[in-house]
Amino acid sequence: MMGIVLYELAGADPNLRFSPHCWKTRMALAHKGLHADRRPWRFMDKSAIAFSGQGNVPVLVDNGEAIYDSWQIAVHLEQRYPLAPALFPGERMVDLSHFINAWADKALLPVIGRIILLDIYNRLAPQDRSYFRRTREERFGRSLEEVAAERPTNLETLRHAIAPLRDILRAQDFVSGQTAAYADYCIFGMFMWSRCTSPVELLASNDPVFLWRERLLDAFDGLARAAPSAEHEGESS
Amino acid sequence: MMGIVLYELAGADPNLRFSPHCWKTRMALAHKGLHADRRPWRFMDKSAIAFSGQGNVPVLVDNGEAIYDSWQIAVHLEQRYPLAPALFPGERMVDLSHFINAWADKALLPVIGRIILLDIYNRLAPQDRSYFRRTREERFGRSLEEVAAERPTNLETLRHAIAPLRDILRAQDFVSGQTAAYADYCIFGMFMWSRCTSPVELLASNDPVFLWRERLLDAFDGLARAAPSAEHEGESS
Repeated sequence: MMGIVLYELAGADPNLRFSPHCWKTRMALAHKGLHADRRPWRFMDKSAIAFSGQGNVPVLVDNGEAIYDSWQIAVHLEQRYPLAPALFPGERMVDLSHFINAWADKALLPVIGRIILLDIYNRLAPQDRSYFRRTREERFGRSLEEVAAERPTNLETLRHAIAPLRDILRAQDFVSGQTAAYADYCIFGMFMWSRCTSPVELLASNDPVFLWRERLLDAFDGLARAAPSAEHEGESS
Repeated sequence: MMGIVLYELAGADPNLRFSPHCWKTRMALAHKGLHADRRPWRFMDKSAIAFSGQGNVPVLVDNGEAIYDSWQIAVHLEQRYPLAPALFPGERMVDLSHFINAWADKALLPVIGRIILLDIYNRLAPQDRSYFRRTREERFGRSLEEVAAERPTNLETLRHAIAPLRDILRAQDFVSGQTAAYADYCIFGMFMWSRCTSPVELLASNDPVFLWRERLLDAFDGLARAAPSAEHEGESS
């Protein structure tokens, strides 16, 4: 098939696209100025992406070529569209961005996941709920409700975990420097995951990370800000 | 004064130079191929570096100009010696390296510090010991010995904290890509701090981070490997 197709995890509302990794890819496509046919996908739709040889989204189909794993998709887009704005603007930026992507996945994703776990569950399509509950309760060794009850502790853990981000954002507007690039998007995806599924406010409004997130919400004509999200009930700072 | 002078924290043995931040600077100087007159400094020698306007090392004096803070020293060296091998090899590498430096300082330094706290104390010059005990016991809210007793927990915390590093070192030899640069040295400094003061082995020998550390111990003709260190009592994996 021609053009670019992106399979994104969706909730009960097919327009609610909340996966952190899919958000990395969505921002990367916007950065490159590329249009994609964004298709909703649910955990129970494994067969719909079986052509990719695995069962997770995002899956990108670029003019017939299937690529999975958000990092591999970013590397693909950079190589395939070298004349579009660079996701890795400078020699070796890809190597350091690789570390920052791993930091987002290892230091932020698990703790944000615990904070918003029950909110995600409540926004899933009905057919995804028992799968999600079973696999996550196995992973955490307790019920979704028990994990959710630990939210205050996990919010503290998160605010500690983002200390390096906070530090540098006092001195520079974006992780990537004066303008945003993939090193920003791979972290921002984690915050969009929360924004799309949960009313919880992860950040205090005087946190430099809050202001960085605002800048990225405004990027690309407010693409991320305009995306369907959970209603925010106000801050918990 | 002409040439480069570097003030480094030293132990009872003046040749034992163990500060993580001083190690960042030492590797940066080696990378640039610059010689420095390395002077031992102790916590009680505040007056010896008062000319820098503050009381912490490393302090670099580059042909009469005093610079403090290891990050500022790295930025200075890159600007002052642009023809020497680059610490930030590529456009915007300085921005992402800034994040990685902050990650080393916020995610690794506090936990490694707890692991080796009592070992550091035991290697300090006699005149530094009461200052060190008092300030650290205030910071941690308990005795050095109580903090040291939590070593097994802190080793687990560390091995979890380095997960992003482990992830990318499966795919690339250095954080900076195919060769080492400042993004590597700012992390490596944390491991040298431990190597120089403590017999504890922070890493399992099959950890990709262990192999990365080996590569950096071998860099610059084994500069770091040959430096005075605590004797290792073998691995605790």
